[in-house]
Amino acid sequence: MNEKTAKYIEQNKDRFMQELFEFLKIPSVSANAKYKDDVLRCANWLAGHLEKMGFKSQVIKTKGHPIVLSEAKGKSNKRLTIYGHYDVQPVDPVTQWKSPPFEPEIRDGFIYARGATDDKGQLFAHVKAIESLIKSEGGLGCNISFLVEGEEECGGNSLEEFIIKEKNRLATDAIIISDTSMYDEKTPAITYGLRGIAAFEIKVRTAASDLHSGVFGGAVGNAAAVLAYIISQTIGMDGRINVPGLYDDIRPLKDWEKKNLARLSFDEKKLAAETGIKKVFGESAYPILQRMWMRPTLEFNGIFGGYMEMGMKTIIPSTAGAKISIRLVPDQNPHKVVDCVIRHIKSVCPDFADVEIVGNISAAEPVIFDVEEPAIKTGRDALREGFGAEPVFIRSGGSIPIVNTFWKELGKPVVLMGFGLDSDGAHSINEKFNVNNFFNGIRTSAHLISNC
Amino acid sequence: MNEKTAKYIEQNKDRFMQELFEFLKIPSVSANAKYKDDVLRCANWLAGHLEKMGFKSQVIKTKGHPIVLSEAKGKSNKRLTIYGHYDVQPVDPVTQWKSPPFEPEIRDGFIYARGATDDKGQLFAHVKAIESLIKSEGGLGCNISFLVEGEEECGGNSLEEFIIKEKNRLATDAIIISDTSMYDEKTPAITYGLRGIAAFEIKVRTAASDLHSGVFGGAVGNAAAVLAYIISQTIGMDGRINVPGLYDDIRPLKDWEKKNLARLSFDEKKLAAETGIKKVFGESAYPILQRMWMRPTLEFNGIFGGYMEMGMKTIIPSTAGAKISIRLVPDQNPHKVVDCVIRHIKSVCPDFADVEIVGNISAAEPVIFDVEEPAIKTGRDALREGFGAEPVFIRSGGSIPIVNTFWKELGKPVVLMGFGLDSDGAHSINEKFNVNNFFNGIRTSAHLISNC
Repeated sequence: MNEKTAKYIEQNKDRFMQELFEFLKIPSVSANAKYKDDVLRCANWLAGHLEKMGFKSQVIKTKGHPIVLSEAKGKSNKRLTIYGHYDVQPVDPVTQWKSPPFEPEIRDGFIYARGATDDKGQLFAHVKAIESLIKSEGGLGCNISFLVEGEEECGGNSLEEFIIKEKNRLATDAIIISDTSMYDEKTPAITYGLRGIAAFEIKVRTAASDLHSGVFGGAVGNAAAVLAYIISQTIGMDGRINVPGLYDDIRPLKDWEKKNLARLSFDEKKLAAETGIKKVFGESAYPILQRMWMRPTLEFNGIFGGYMEMGMKTIIPSTAGAKISIRLVPDQNPHKVVDCVIRHIKSVCPDFADVEIVGNISAAEPVIFDVEEPAIKTGRDALREGFGAEPVFIRSGGSIPIVNTFWKELGKPVVLMGFGLDSDGAHSINEKFNVNNFFNGIRTSAHLISNC
Repeated sequence: MNEKTAKYIEQNKDRFMQELFEFLKIPSVSANAKYKDDVLRCANWLAGHLEKMGFKSQVIKTKGHPIVLSEAKGKSNKRLTIYGHYDVQPVDPVTQWKSPPFEPEIRDGFIYARGATDDKGQLFAHVKAIESLIKSEGGLGCNISFLVEGEEECGGNSLEEFIIKEKNRLATDAIIISDTSMYDEKTPAITYGLRGIAAFEIKVRTAASDLHSGVFGGAVGNAAAVLAYIISQTIGMDGRINVPGLYDDIRPLKDWEKKNLARLSFDEKKLAAETGIKKVFGESAYPILQRMWMRPTLEFNGIFGGYMEMGMKTIIPSTAGAKISIRLVPDQNPHKVVDCVIRHIKSVCPDFADVEIVGNISAAEPVIFDVEEPAIKTGRDALREGFGAEPVFIRSGGSIPIVNTFWKELGKPVVLMGFGLDSDGAHSINEKFNVNNFFNGIRTSAHLISNC
């Protein structure tokens, strides 16, 4: 960006913040039907705000909450698509907030409000960057589309359906998303890979109903003990997943990735302080960041069976269940992995019991982008300019299903350039967003778009 | 008993049944405070009924439900104490009863009502036997005490406290209890041993709170997986309890017991049909009856941890718990066994997790009676006469804590001579009691008392 743009940003900081506060004041909680009208009002507010900036906005009805699609022409034929979400997480327990979640305020350099970092603050940085470019340069260098959904926090799939249906109309050169985290407070990052996920539930049965442990103990199998045995045969206390075939398709790390990993520090003491763990867990042959980003992990997210209330009930549980999810890395295929796990679980189940899958299997593929992609390189340069620090390439252990949809349907790289921090409390009480990161985000976005 | 008594029983069958129906109609559900007045009414009904027969009855207040103590003099100085309970289990789900649980009716040779077998019907057989002896012989051969509690089905300990406090006043030569089962429909049985029990709850912790499996998977241990590992290291799928020291104090079977076991048939197909199991479970080196009666068993009565509701939540559970109970056999000591199990569980817990005991440890010792005791021999003879079939000696895999109290406090053998069947549905819907078993029970009791 040129000096005029930088000056414009500097001169309008207070107004930008006031406008962000307006956005944050709308309680667009998508998971709670009570807020349905507020969610719609928020979509209309954003669409209107972009209209005033010169965009053509549509508030597109879905079976859930609306999608905001706002488009502006630029000088070149190129198009950048900026994704974000205007909906927010619920605020419970609201009494534990220091300031009301929908009355934003600044304390000690942080904006406190629900949605401050996730994702209104990060999204709005792009909005204000674009306003700054239009006002200071008289127009945009390339076409810009905002594609902003209202169902990210409630697991809706309206946007996915919309992208699949309208993929020609949505054709673009790159997708920009600011809904992830920086590497640390000083170091911006491009997230170039995400783990995939596969999840399902199993149920063990040993008898038709729970039985008296005095009468039948010694003759009838215990479903809780069988489930525990199956779990113990599936995941080792050394972090190893003992499922034949599971590790087969893992793409080896590239040399630059190994060097990159070796350079990135990880503070295990900080992790312990934040999570309350005694000791880290996992495959000791791999560095911890590799374990969290580049190795599959299998978790039993919940287990249940038999008598779970207060006191004692001397039964032999006839059924027991577990919710299982597996984080996947390139090039693991979720369905192939699920097949391996199910085959293994069935093979270790003792002959006096049955194990079956209950309900649906959900799956999202892992995704990895080539860091040599021009859009990613441009994103990295923009972060360096915007934050005044050398960005790093990281991967994420989590999964962002919409990234897969963009990659699969539009066939273009997704630049994940978060302005937030893991410590922002995205889904917790007292969510916050660093004021500096908001303005650095505006500068970053202005650099990115002026270089596109 | 003499012919006059037999004739009296035969002539009064209809009235005996009507009176049992009166007893069964009182909804003496001890576990539900809503029925408190009915429980008291039931105690008063029984005390009054025995008064009319010539007993001196007391309805003794406790901190819970009252105890009925009714005493009658006989010719000799000997005393038999008949224990029973007048309270019943709850009736839910009441809509699944074919006839209302407190409106007794006879169908196909069975009395259907809550309490029919457990324990009003069995207890009342003794009441009517004694009436028959008094009326037909003009008195009793020995002193008889009825000691009947109203807290058996709600886990109350008022009777235990009363026995401990009043053990001199309650001095007796033997205790008769009909609250167990016959060996099968044709074969009456004396239960000469009961397993003990020890129970407690454990909790595993790996972190301060549940964590996101995408962010922390690969670095933080999963409490559900740790719990499963601990369970798998404690109980084998072959039924073996892998706890050092646990099997140390088991009293070897006597020769007659081995021969007895070999004679008693066990129908595994019937067990499978009744319980819905695919295959029996347990230590294959021991016959199934030995496993159920004479071997310790360890059950995880319930397991829980992480996300247990509908759908998926991709967390790493930070805590997981299990309820554990161990059935014990002579001469295992509950506290010693619990120590062994806890020591073992702590020793196998991985270093990144903690495991602790939650709440109280409950314990009841196993009990075994010498089948050469005169009271037990007399009981066996009475069953032979009453049922017209050779009785067998059996043990029970269950625990009846009050039997331990009698044995420990009064120092006299307890004759467990059940008139019911395992298939009576004691704690289930459509509880029933075979009409023939009711009258055979009356005849048995009359034989027993006339021979005391």
